[in-house]
Amino acid sequence: MTVTITAFERSPDRGNGLARDMRVRWALEEAGQPYEVRLLSFKTMKEPAHLAIQPFGQIPTYEDGELTLFESGAIVLHVAERGPGLLPDEAKARARAIMWMFAALNTLEPPIFDRSLVRILERDKPWYEERLSALDEIIRKRLEGLSSHLGDADWLDGAFSAGDLLMVTVLRRLQGLGLLEERPNLAAYVARAEARPAYQRAFEAQRAVFAASSAG
Amino acid sequence: MTVTITAFERSPDRGNGLARDMRVRWALEEAGQPYEVRLLSFKTMKEPAHLAIQPFGQIPTYEDGELTLFESGAIVLHVAERGPGLLPDEAKARARAIMWMFAALNTLEPPIFDRSLVRILERDKPWYEERLSALDEIIRKRLEGLSSHLGDADWLDGAFSAGDLLMVTVLRRLQGLGLLEERPNLAAYVARAEARPAYQRAFEAQRAVFAASSAG
Repeated sequence: MTVTITAFERSPDRGNGLARDMRVRWALEEAGQPYEVRLLSFKTMKEPAHLAIQPFGQIPTYEDGELTLFESGAIVLHVAERGPGLLPDEAKARARAIMWMFAALNTLEPPIFDRSLVRILERDKPWYEERLSALDEIIRKRLEGLSSHLGDADWLDGAFSAGDLLMVTVLRRLQGLGLLEERPNLAAYVARAEARPAYQRAFEAQRAVFAASSAG
Repeated sequence: MTVTITAFERSPDRGNGLARDMRVRWALEEAGQPYEVRLLSFKTMKEPAHLAIQPFGQIPTYEDGELTLFESGAIVLHVAERGPGLLPDEAKARARAIMWMFAALNTLEPPIFDRSLVRILERDKPWYEERLSALDEIIRKRLEGLSSHLGDADWLDGAFSAGDLLMVTVLRRLQGLGLLEERPNLAAYVARAEARPAYQRAFEAQRAVFAASSAG
């Protein structure tokens, strides 16, 4: 049975790997699991056929026979539980890797994703600078905690895990904005992850989709 | 070995069960797992002893022998995997229950939590009304998707699960504001969960902490 995921036909990030299908592609590549991709336009994402499997009208989804999932975090965890390389075998280390998955999505991602939205949607508002400063302050505190924890280790808890995978996809949103670069160990952590062959295969695959949609 | 969690010595929600220790208490009650609570002041939460186990200086944490976890979602999943009643045995249903855990924390909670913060921190800002309206629009769309999915079912996917537990703790933040009440099936869903004996034990336990701190 072939795994099928959904992704943007034309990603708003212009193929920079920030859309949430990147996480799922990367996890599937790390686990050595082949997959197919069904591309969705912004219009078809909100139509009944997609809403029946994703009630919030978003990407990505994951279909494998009779199992359909959404939520990139849940899909990555499912892939990590079934394949090799993304979760430690030892029970305590496994629980901590999953803890870092939740930390990426529930502690780091909300202010970082908000900041991206504010830069797009509120740029012309009179409160733009103040909103951005307030978010930067929150983000800096979170990065400080993460940086202190990481120290000079390669990964958040022993070997590379699904926790690192999600954390890196969240931190990449900050690249080039100065915030990540203030914490050299975090910038190096992201670069270390981006150098993984599985990351590079996933990145090229999503970039090829954007290139094809732009040429078409 | 006794499980120990951390919670606010004096919760900012005044014992209304909105702090994130409530999720963990409720999960432990559903699973029939006794626990102890170590209370932290806002000051001690940011001190080195706590930062060593929670790098972001937050509550709750979970300690069980040599395992220490933070992130309420990760703790609830850990409790659900070890005890009865919070995750189905069948693999596909289990994956979907975990999917709803991530949906609660990554799709519903960010705008709902933001709305709470805006109401406290930005009430006097010139953009207050506009920010609130924008968040309400996002929240309404998410509730629409959730309400359509739930329909007239009791729970999100078959039997009550850790996915419902987290979703209800997120939705409770909207009670009395009108948004939840616009979707009667969601309001009934929250009420159904609040009627569970395990919920009530957890709620009373966290309320007792606040009552004691107020009397002291």
